[in-house]
Amino acid sequence: LKANNNAAIGVFDSGIGGLTVLREIFALLPFENTIYLGDTARVPYGIRSPETVTKYSFESAAFLASKGIKMLVIACNTASSISLERIKERFPLPVLGVIEPGAKAAVRATKNKRIGVIGTDATIRSGSYPKAIRALDGEAEVIAIPCPLFVPLVEEGWIEGDVARLTAEKYLLPLKHTGIDTLVLGCTHYPLLKGIIGKTMGPDVALIDSAEETAKEIKEKLIIEDLRMTEGGKGHYREFFVTDSRDRFMAVGERFLGERIEHINIADLSEEVAR
Amino acid sequence: LKANNNAAIGVFDSGIGGLTVLREIFALLPFENTIYLGDTARVPYGIRSPETVTKYSFESAAFLASKGIKMLVIACNTASSISLERIKERFPLPVLGVIEPGAKAAVRATKNKRIGVIGTDATIRSGSYPKAIRALDGEAEVIAIPCPLFVPLVEEGWIEGDVARLTAEKYLLPLKHTGIDTLVLGCTHYPLLKGIIGKTMGPDVALIDSAEETAKEIKEKLIIEDLRMTEGGKGHYREFFVTDSRDRFMAVGERFLGERIEHINIADLSEEVAR
Repeated sequence: LKANNNAAIGVFDSGIGGLTVLREIFALLPFENTIYLGDTARVPYGIRSPETVTKYSFESAAFLASKGIKMLVIACNTASSISLERIKERFPLPVLGVIEPGAKAAVRATKNKRIGVIGTDATIRSGSYPKAIRALDGEAEVIAIPCPLFVPLVEEGWIEGDVARLTAEKYLLPLKHTGIDTLVLGCTHYPLLKGIIGKTMGPDVALIDSAEETAKEIKEKLIIEDLRMTEGGKGHYREFFVTDSRDRFMAVGERFLGERIEHINIADLSEEVAR
Repeated sequence: LKANNNAAIGVFDSGIGGLTVLREIFALLPFENTIYLGDTARVPYGIRSPETVTKYSFESAAFLASKGIKMLVIACNTASSISLERIKERFPLPVLGVIEPGAKAAVRATKNKRIGVIGTDATIRSGSYPKAIRALDGEAEVIAIPCPLFVPLVEEGWIEGDVARLTAEKYLLPLKHTGIDTLVLGCTHYPLLKGIIGKTMGPDVALIDSAEETAKEIKEKLIIEDLRMTEGGKGHYREFFVTDSRDRFMAVGERFLGERIEHINIADLSEEVAR
């Protein structure tokens, strides 16, 4: 059974980071309806065990599926790394993560086949980027390192200045010295640090923004599956749900989305659990 | 009904931070049995709404109460700030938080009645320290500021070096210039940053470690309520429970506790919810 073309694209993340992906969806697919869910009561996923990440991801996916979406986007590197395959098995919908698009773009961009990846502890420990990249190019060498302080820096709004610069140098200079020519920003928060990351890595390292690449992939998939919004599609909407306080999401979220968030709903995932 | 003197002291925190309180309990009350619960599946509480913090705190308290403890210690500034009174109402046990002991020590220490407090967003927003301090001394002036990056810095192990120093200066120099003579470390992670905080504030500002003060208060309360371990008390134990992965808790927790954690159990709070 094909989904309704006018149904929404469902996007979930552990918190606000996925808004960088939503931002790119807005830019590339301005007429699509969207429903965004941020699991702010349990953010961050990046420090949790695989079992817990999968449990939380299932609950988020089930919530969005119950809204009749036509496509599910896991706009969270940690959840994509750990739970994508199992969510694909469980939900009868096109499901996209953020790892594959970033991996593809990295393989296209590299010349010396030395690719760096940065992300949360859980994303890096999962090994999902090296696996995805090597599946596309068996000769590629991947150096992946966790940068746990980048997320709190972004959330605090310290995206430039001495603390951000020194933190970036401490994490990234050893990576730079490995001779990579391409770096995947493997966390949805990191596009906000692109300036300082770019300065630290220098002009010879291509930065891959997985949010941008994921939006491109979503567009492609909508076309292939004939799921694009029809021209006469009515009642355009962009809905937001969080599992905890609206205030913080609104205040910090606008920096990520690049526009105002007018209205935020509260989602109670415990009622939607798919057991 | 008086509790069994040989029952354990139950201690809970959103994660590993409360281990600094447990460490002081071990030092001051080495013969007491203890059960520690870290809600690592949902850490950190400091960025969540009051409703969510209370819900999670009730679940943690109910879990420990079900173990037959003789006293409950909320070793988390955020949960103490927001949920202490309601937990006291709900659970028929002596219950202690970490705010009151820190506030008392600050009032004792200050000479110019200008007291600074640092903590997480949620602790500072709750206003619990200014309220507790002014209840003890109506003339005290309290300047409270959130330092959200301190927790991730400690968890990353960056407790000295340039990043820690610059972060401390950015948060604390404006506070120093207000002329406070006493600073309450209003977060259980902060004792690990005492070195850099002390250097930044200088020798004329007294640092109040709420973990130390809380242990003293626990000892006092055990004596008053005649709840100390009896001399013939047998089967000494120190139990640890977490709601998520043991590995991270073990690796990071030892830095907080100052000794090895031999065995960690997994607690499923969803089964213990007090509805």
